[in-house]
Amino acid sequence: MPSVLWILFDGGGDRPVGGKTAFHTAFKPAIDYLTSLGSCGIMDPISPGVRPGSDTAHLSLFGYDPYRYYTGRGAFEALGADVELKPGDVAFRTNLATVDEGGVVIDRRAGRYISPDEARAVEELMYRIGREAEKFGVEVFYRSTVEHRGVLVLRGAVSHRVGDTDPHKVGAPLLKSTPLDDSREAAKTAEVVNWLTERFRELARELEINKARQREGRPPINAILLRGGGYMPKIEPIREKYGVKAAAIAGVALIRGVARAVGIETHTAPGLVGTKDDVFDEAVRRAVELMSSYQLVFLHVKGTDSTSHDSDFAGKVSVIERFDKTLSSHLDKLLDHYVVVTSDHATPVLVREHTGEPVPLLLYGPDVVQDDVAKFSELTCWRGALGRVRGIDIMPTLASYLGTSEKFGE
Amino acid sequence: MPSVLWILFDGGGDRPVGGKTAFHTAFKPAIDYLTSLGSCGIMDPISPGVRPGSDTAHLSLFGYDPYRYYTGRGAFEALGADVELKPGDVAFRTNLATVDEGGVVIDRRAGRYISPDEARAVEELMYRIGREAEKFGVEVFYRSTVEHRGVLVLRGAVSHRVGDTDPHKVGAPLLKSTPLDDSREAAKTAEVVNWLTERFRELARELEINKARQREGRPPINAILLRGGGYMPKIEPIREKYGVKAAAIAGVALIRGVARAVGIETHTAPGLVGTKDDVFDEAVRRAVELMSSYQLVFLHVKGTDSTSHDSDFAGKVSVIERFDKTLSSHLDKLLDHYVVVTSDHATPVLVREHTGEPVPLLLYGPDVVQDDVAKFSELTCWRGALGRVRGIDIMPTLASYLGTSEKFGE
Repeated sequence: MPSVLWILFDGGGDRPVGGKTAFHTAFKPAIDYLTSLGSCGIMDPISPGVRPGSDTAHLSLFGYDPYRYYTGRGAFEALGADVELKPGDVAFRTNLATVDEGGVVIDRRAGRYISPDEARAVEELMYRIGREAEKFGVEVFYRSTVEHRGVLVLRGAVSHRVGDTDPHKVGAPLLKSTPLDDSREAAKTAEVVNWLTERFRELARELEINKARQREGRPPINAILLRGGGYMPKIEPIREKYGVKAAAIAGVALIRGVARAVGIETHTAPGLVGTKDDVFDEAVRRAVELMSSYQLVFLHVKGTDSTSHDSDFAGKVSVIERFDKTLSSHLDKLLDHYVVVTSDHATPVLVREHTGEPVPLLLYGPDVVQDDVAKFSELTCWRGALGRVRGIDIMPTLASYLGTSEKFGE
Repeated sequence: MPSVLWILFDGGGDRPVGGKTAFHTAFKPAIDYLTSLGSCGIMDPISPGVRPGSDTAHLSLFGYDPYRYYTGRGAFEALGADVELKPGDVAFRTNLATVDEGGVVIDRRAGRYISPDEARAVEELMYRIGREAEKFGVEVFYRSTVEHRGVLVLRGAVSHRVGDTDPHKVGAPLLKSTPLDDSREAAKTAEVVNWLTERFRELARELEINKARQREGRPPINAILLRGGGYMPKIEPIREKYGVKAAAIAGVALIRGVARAVGIETHTAPGLVGTKDDVFDEAVRRAVELMSSYQLVFLHVKGTDSTSHDSDFAGKVSVIERFDKTLSSHLDKLLDHYVVVTSDHATPVLVREHTGEPVPLLLYGPDVVQDDVAKFSELTCWRGALGRVRGIDIMPTLASYLGTSEKFGE
């Protein structure tokens, strides 16, 4: 049975600079060989002109309308931190911060650098608060992510419809969270949020790490600021929605998180950690191997986005070329299967931000129409047989080729 | 910083006649030069096959779903008459008419021709009625537009959910307006409408102009018929919705009205009054000048539509050629900016009405993909790199190129 290998170059799309783009410039004989045999097109990850985040774009590519399923940053931040969320969980983005005696914010990032030991101490403190919070009938989890940042998850009869405690500026006092609707859940959530904010301040006074920080002249970690509450929606797994058993290999936690949220089993590979220096040998080898037990294997390449944010054209070309070289040694094993190559959004090297242009799209398969396009790039794929489609169109298309989707009507 | 010049040929799209269209036939080296460097496509102003009005098409092109924002013709008719509307205002289209003693309509247009002096006399009468209407807590404005036509605006706690007073045929009595829902506003509005309809008939008896009309054997203006009540919706200005500071230069009041309604600042130019004989020198010069203070300048060319309604192929070609000649003398100043050329709908010269085919679309810009299309027309643009898009897709696309839109997600 054929399977699908879906290669995604994060931020791979670009705008022509001097008539060239990274995809156009890169020497990539394996991808271009598949291109010459398959159908090309251009794809709006969400809809024309909309600038996607990696989270909303991947939701859309996995076949889930982001306007329905993207429910606030907190939930996806938690997914990105490898926190497992259940439907109904409410997650906040958090900052560890420094406040004065009166609760006025002095530093929204507590000096920004938080050592691993300090992060662990804060996690322990939050664990203790979580135990105490059981009296509200609510479970509380906290995970430190990068520097002063973290995620806080509430589980139980809670709501994301509550205000931030983060005043979003220094010189202002910590805010009281207020319910944003009349539900009992919102009232309870605001109560718990305000209680744990206070409790954190009390317990932080005893924190050993703050004594050390004081000796070193660093600002104490004596407050936690919550913002961007979002809830985890109920998502029908991709296996039920599209009939496809899917795996993803990704070095980036956020991508793994989104994949897991839609029921895609996630894998990692040595060498694939989500930087421009990733080495793809193991990732491609595993992806091809997984194709025997999954109908769809999604392989995420982050380096094209990282180099774009750094405005590094040569680096972007190099990521594509190194990936293609690895791919070429497995090309013979792919010819009886489907291969999709695309991007989740453009990150033009001259813009250094996600932009809203369509990205090139390749669908290779033994029974896919062969069009005239022989080179995968922004400058060529628009000529192809697929025309202009949207991210949300891809999964139904693949499910149809795989023969896994239900007929609509008789 | 780059800006956008958006050139819109009203009704410019056409169907091939003997294999040709006006865009295809016109000698237009400036537009075709930009075409050869940019991306082309075809655009459905609303959606495939839908025949747009100029008002709904422009709403869509400005990035506002007409199915949500087009709230009855009355409101847009008022905008077209240069009447400033506030959100919540209710506007009706009106006819000045002739009724008999018993209120039965004899002529729905009071002979159609209304002299400027007569129009002014009616406006004065309506002003007096408006003063009296203050007892209802409602403000009333009336403006005469063309011939027997005008607009009536109610402001206050009013609703558009009331029936017409216009029976839409002769030989039938003036209708009593009835509320179409249970709201207090609809009841009040119907009451005011019926009161002012009666009051108009009473006061019309004393009108000096009717004595003169009687002497000339012309039917008296002794009734006002209301129809097509619509309310002015609350519209998020384009600057907030798309982050774009925009100006429009248009000779047609309705286009200026729609532009103003979405927060586009409107300008006029000598020579640009909205006919087939418009001269474009000042309009193009001003448009280019405005590009230094606005991110988007929209320039509306009406002549292509007027000539189409007259089935005047040569005239349509001439409008395009004369515009292009003016544009060519400013071409050097545009090359570092974006230029959009399109149409708000097709008005085929053999049909003489708005039709529902897609129209050609050009997006030029220094960092826009160059496709193979070198001539702007219905017969060529479908080959281009933009594929087939909708009117509502243009503003997000421009906002992405201008870098003014918010990212959706992280």
